[in-house]
Amino acid sequence: MAENRRKTAITPTREDDYAEWYQQVVRQGDLAETSPVRGCMVIRPWGYALWENIRDRLDAMFKETGHRNAYFPLFIPKSYLEKEAEHVEGFAKECAVVTHHRLEASPEGGLQPAGELEEPLVVRPTSETIIGATYARWVQSYRDLPILINQWANVVRWELRTRLFLRTAEFLWQEGHTVHETEAEAWEETVRMLNVYQTFAESFMAMPVIAGEKTAGERFPGAVRTLCIESMMQDRKALQAGTSHFLGQNFARSSGITYQSREGREEFAWTTSWGVSTRLIGGLIMTHADDDGMVMPPRLAPAHAVLLPIIRRDSDRERIMAYVHKVAAALRQERFDGAPVRVEIDDREVNAGEKGWEWVRRGVPLRVEIGPRDMEKDAVFVARRDRGPKEKTSLPWKQFVQNVGSELEDIQSSLFERALDRRERHTREVDTFSQLESFFTPVDGARPGIHGGFARAHWCGREECEKRINDELSVTIRSVPLEEEGFTEPGKCICCGNESRTRVVMAKSY
Amino acid sequence: MAENRRKTAITPTREDDYAEWYQQVVRQGDLAETSPVRGCMVIRPWGYALWENIRDRLDAMFKETGHRNAYFPLFIPKSYLEKEAEHVEGFAKECAVVTHHRLEASPEGGLQPAGELEEPLVVRPTSETIIGATYARWVQSYRDLPILINQWANVVRWELRTRLFLRTAEFLWQEGHTVHETEAEAWEETVRMLNVYQTFAESFMAMPVIAGEKTAGERFPGAVRTLCIESMMQDRKALQAGTSHFLGQNFARSSGITYQSREGREEFAWTTSWGVSTRLIGGLIMTHADDDGMVMPPRLAPAHAVLLPIIRRDSDRERIMAYVHKVAAALRQERFDGAPVRVEIDDREVNAGEKGWEWVRRGVPLRVEIGPRDMEKDAVFVARRDRGPKEKTSLPWKQFVQNVGSELEDIQSSLFERALDRRERHTREVDTFSQLESFFTPVDGARPGIHGGFARAHWCGREECEKRINDELSVTIRSVPLEEEGFTEPGKCICCGNESRTRVVMAKSY
Ligand SMILES: [Zn+2]
Ligand SMILES: [Zn+2]
Repeated sequence: MAENRRKTAITPTREDDYAEWYQQVVRQGDLAETSPVRGCMVIRPWGYALWENIRDRLDAMFKETGHRNAYFPLFIPKSYLEKEAEHVEGFAKECAVVTHHRLEASPEGGLQPAGELEEPLVVRPTSETIIGATYARWVQSYRDLPILINQWANVVRWELRTRLFLRTAEFLWQEGHTVHETEAEAWEETVRMLNVYQTFAESFMAMPVIAGEKTAGERFPGAVRTLCIESMMQDRKALQAGTSHFLGQNFARSSGITYQSREGREEFAWTTSWGVSTRLIGGLIMTHADDDGMVMPPRLAPAHAVLLPIIRRDSDRERIMAYVHKVAAALRQERFDGAPVRVEIDDREVNAGEKGWEWVRRGVPLRVEIGPRDMEKDAVFVARRDRGPKEKTSLPWKQFVQNVGSELEDIQSSLFERALDRRERHTREVDTFSQLESFFTPVDGARPGIHGGFARAHWCGREECEKRINDELSVTIRSVPLEEEGFTEPGKCICCGNESRTRVVMAKSY
Repeated sequence: MAENRRKTAITPTREDDYAEWYQQVVRQGDLAETSPVRGCMVIRPWGYALWENIRDRLDAMFKETGHRNAYFPLFIPKSYLEKEAEHVEGFAKECAVVTHHRLEASPEGGLQPAGELEEPLVVRPTSETIIGATYARWVQSYRDLPILINQWANVVRWELRTRLFLRTAEFLWQEGHTVHETEAEAWEETVRMLNVYQTFAESFMAMPVIAGEKTAGERFPGAVRTLCIESMMQDRKALQAGTSHFLGQNFARSSGITYQSREGREEFAWTTSWGVSTRLIGGLIMTHADDDGMVMPPRLAPAHAVLLPIIRRDSDRERIMAYVHKVAAALRQERFDGAPVRVEIDDREVNAGEKGWEWVRRGVPLRVEIGPRDMEKDAVFVARRDRGPKEKTSLPWKQFVQNVGSELEDIQSSLFERALDRRERHTREVDTFSQLESFFTPVDGARPGIHGGFARAHWCGREECEKRINDELSVTIRSVPLEEEGFTEPGKCICCGNESRTRVVMAKSY
């Protein structure tokens, strides 16, 4: 590495070691850290404030579409999992099992499990089964429908190879579970929630996504159809960022959710489920963060602007701080995205340069330095996180305050545009299997680096062709455009040459 | 029961069977229900919306006092509990222990635990130990202090005898954990958070509380001092509704939280912790609910007003619904407690009488019936939940809308006044042990019914006298007024006659 590169705030860079870069962004951006409990993370205040913003915004969208929150038990009796063979297949291999309800003194002087349970309990990997059992009690008649409930909760899936936010044993998520009288209503709900996720990802996370359907092989266990949003990360792999499942009558059948219809017949209900998790934060990072650390989209940033007083002599402190507080108060009178601008003042007695870089790594949209010379000019010295770290502008403070809302809007849309542009540059129409192969083959096998992207190619719909793509190239079909939404573009399967309704998106993925 | 009593919406009444009345209020008020998982509850949407309001209001108060939220792992390694003998004593007897991380097919055809963990994990009964271990890594220097963090989470304490909200195996709570440089700062924080809880209980829950200190015997395991708020329920028992612990250097010592002081010495930090839980909802119910069900204080009610269209002929439907929506829209323009008035419209095709009673049992502050005759008079027919269920007033709709904010204020303060008045009526100064005994002895031993209350009596501070009160009367010392706050009223212990600094509150309790 003899190149004359600018020193970056994060080492290594994306180009040098993408996986390690990701971990460093998370750690050095004060987002999260590993814990002494295998696979479980500590979400630090700055990272958790981001999650709170994600949660509150999504929650408002769920409520606007008629949903209410409820809370169901953390534990699931083992017998519930035994009932649903297909569903369980996916979860039994990786769940935390509670077998005892007490610790008692052991002969060696420590503590040992005691009070064995008659029936082991599983820590919920998802609440599908326990919610199904509850709904079976709640639903008697078509008058009880629809049920439109969401839950915010922690869930556990035992994972051996974990990565902060992307794959952890415990994670936070929301799971919507709805029950409907008719197939059409349940399908409409499935699509509605997919649209909510797409809107949230694009408008709030500034993360462009492709909405579509999973193939049979990639479906949620037990679902009839699984819809999803997929996003391209900076290493050009796809991340599944949210799913919405049309469960048909499968879950109603296994949970016994029946209702008396308008005609007086006993019928199985139609259900859906949909969820997103703290994984979204992983997606956010891999969409926007750069070699200097996290980059927060303003609509979700825990703080929109940080004010950094530069105090070189103690005798300046009082005057500068008064000026800083005046600017902060004025900023908080301004509005962005329907609420007051969120401002932090960092007056810790830490070296000013260090402090500035800390906020670069945390990804706050606007850094505002205020020193004696700025004060004399009634100015502030402003840097936008979506531009180079040294690119700073001196502005009259009143002008800065007056324009802060539109500046934040501009950052929000520039982040979206940049991500969309990246996706478009790395999306290719591919018409033969050998083109597909070369698209996903790095130039230098010894140092593969970042390569590939999204391939838009024809697929006949047969498992056999899908399997060939998976096996030979480690590429999966991420998204099939919905026929219901009118996506049709006939062609020939790149594997077998059979008819294909439309191109699908193929990619390597998380 | 030959009395000529009005039929109540809840059976039994408080007087007839208080414990069963409580369960029925919870169930019939759509707040929560038991689940198939022993000791765990399902919090229904109406109950969960109440919890969301509690959470959001408290959260805002925590943030105003400088705290931020974070998230720590659900699981605690067994070895962490082994380290802290005193702390664990209290929790080891009642915790869910995870011993396996997989289920596999059993020879009998079901599923059985597999993949035994090297070290069992405990589902957090509180996060004290895991947060302590994390803080030990975070804190190096006095510059890292204070740490002011709160967590909203689910916790599990294995309970055999459970009651919805009051005592459940899994419950939702918040736990604040703070670290300070000095003893004085940690003590100040302990008192500050006690005050936050008192303000929240009284101003939002309309639940008068007594703030004070626990005796040594009633302290949180490992705490140096435990402060608490105690409230009188309608059966005159005390409910501990929130605690704030001054932990001295005890937890810093066992978790290894040390910092380099301003003088360059390695010192143990000073810590606090404080929490409230879904138990608050139990307190809210037992403070305000009556023989017709739940009564929601307006500042926390999921809906402030429900509009109930009375449609007797189908041909009226359209006109009445238009009128109902006009009133709803006008109500939503009004503000109460800093936000728009929350309005629900219940237009389900259910018998109007039944529907009205449902909302009585749910405790919505204002029920607004709107039928053809009301519409003709430009009126609405309004009932307040804090008054008799038949006490309804016809009002011009514009007048109702205009006054809705002050009407809600009035309900809020009337609920507080009523609870305060009840507490005062059942609080007595007691000066001898025999007076204490007779205060806590029901008139008819065969049908004890509701009796007793809060006794304000002198106590010398000795464990021996406290034990006598506990053992002979099943009465505990609930609250000792804080000396720091100037509470001094010298007298003689009712057990032994020794000097006493002040009267303390004695009661039966939950
Ligand atoms: Zn094919
Ligand atoms: Zn005594």
